[in-house]
Amino acid sequence: MAKKVYLVGAGPGDLGLITVKALDLVKKADTIIYDRLANEEILGFAKKDAKLVYVGKKEGHHIFRQERINEILKNEADEKKVVVRLKGGDPMVFGRGGEEMNALKENGIDFEVVPGVTSAIAVPGLANIPVTDRRYASSFSVVTGHEDPAKSEPKMDISRLTTDTVVILMGVGNLENIVSQALKTRRKETPVAIIQEGATENQKVVVGTLDDIVSKARDGGIEPPAIIVVGDVVRVRGEVGG
Amino acid sequence: MAKKVYLVGAGPGDLGLITVKALDLVKKADTIIYDRLANEEILGFAKKDAKLVYVGKKEGHHIFRQERINEILKNEADEKKVVVRLKGGDPMVFGRGGEEMNALKENGIDFEVVPGVTSAIAVPGLANIPVTDRRYASSFSVVTGHEDPAKSEPKMDISRLTTDTVVILMGVGNLENIVSQALKTRRKETPVAIIQEGATENQKVVVGTLDDIVSKARDGGIEPPAIIVVGDVVRVRGEVGG
Repeated sequence: MAKKVYLVGAGPGDLGLITVKALDLVKKADTIIYDRLANEEILGFAKKDAKLVYVGKKEGHHIFRQERINEILKNEADEKKVVVRLKGGDPMVFGRGGEEMNALKENGIDFEVVPGVTSAIAVPGLANIPVTDRRYASSFSVVTGHEDPAKSEPKMDISRLTTDTVVILMGVGNLENIVSQALKTRRKETPVAIIQEGATENQKVVVGTLDDIVSKARDGGIEPPAIIVVGDVVRVRGEVGG
Repeated sequence: MAKKVYLVGAGPGDLGLITVKALDLVKKADTIIYDRLANEEILGFAKKDAKLVYVGKKEGHHIFRQERINEILKNEADEKKVVVRLKGGDPMVFGRGGEEMNALKENGIDFEVVPGVTSAIAVPGLANIPVTDRRYASSFSVVTGHEDPAKSEPKMDISRLTTDTVVILMGVGNLENIVSQALKTRRKETPVAIIQEGATENQKVVVGTLDDIVSKARDGGIEPPAIIVVGDVVRVRGEVGG
């Protein structure tokens, strides 16, 4: 049997939103290497004797460098087992899937990508906010609110984003800065929603405008993890409720 | 039982990439109202006596206006059955999910959104192109290459998009125009990939640069449906193969 690692998206948190293929792979995996899962209950579907390896953050710090993760992927694949690299959402959306593909290729290990439902689209959707809508938005962009320190380029300036809808992941800790950037190019009446713990039973949503979202988020006690949506599509939630 | 319509994403084509929840709903639906599915085999999971209603295009023309679709949704829900509105990819990505939520709300019908894997991210991913990558891209945008004629605003100008990665859906028929727009703000060496019939066994990929992708697409016989990816992330495919 060829050495192979499956790069698998686990979806946004709700267990029903994992794909059929991803669930099958979790069930038959000999090794599951995981981090940042929105919902670790998915690991309950693993075989009793499956090896579960956590390579994510601990108290905010990366406990494994990417190089070490690549080494673990290689070592597990070398044992010719079904190896699943499980990531929250989709492995190719801020998930380092590309880097891991490169590392596996360099080590002569086959891989297969199994896309997942990304939180960037599903979390707004579950809060009744479509990222596109013929009435409000024919384009959307997805960025992170903070950048990886390893990246030399400057942080994405929200004011430069020209799409109708902007989805900002991991931005709540940086909300004031994001809002002041956005106000450089968008009206202060532009609708904004912040969705905390979307796709879970604990979902909490605050809706406002660029003008008042900072105070509303503070009053609402919004905390990470949360997703920020900027644009007229937020109006849909006001119209249909949720 | 309350009247309810499920707005369900069927995923990008590969049957394994439907979510567990979406497949469950397809299996128990009394009525499935569908269009634009990348793979109609999913309908084979419906109950034998399920009512299947096609409301998509016929020979390029919409055979049902959105108003008529909304009426069908209402009528089916009024019969108090399990009604599934099934859409390719994710219902909130160029899927009119927002409009249908509004129509259902106006008719007093409950709805529930079931996000799906969107082709906009999965198709590049399955072609070994991550939409983000710490080395190449910390932002991406998604647009359509043609606009709905009902929309009064001008078509999105690709040259105005500032994200590192740009994913263009339904743009192959308009490729020359897209490339000339992109060249206004991006180097001619910028990598471009076109993925035809991604997430299916017929996937066909052409890789080039803004400078040569038009001729390469012509030589390669690329036809719709296809997804265009512009940006340095396309390099990953060159590095790892696929």
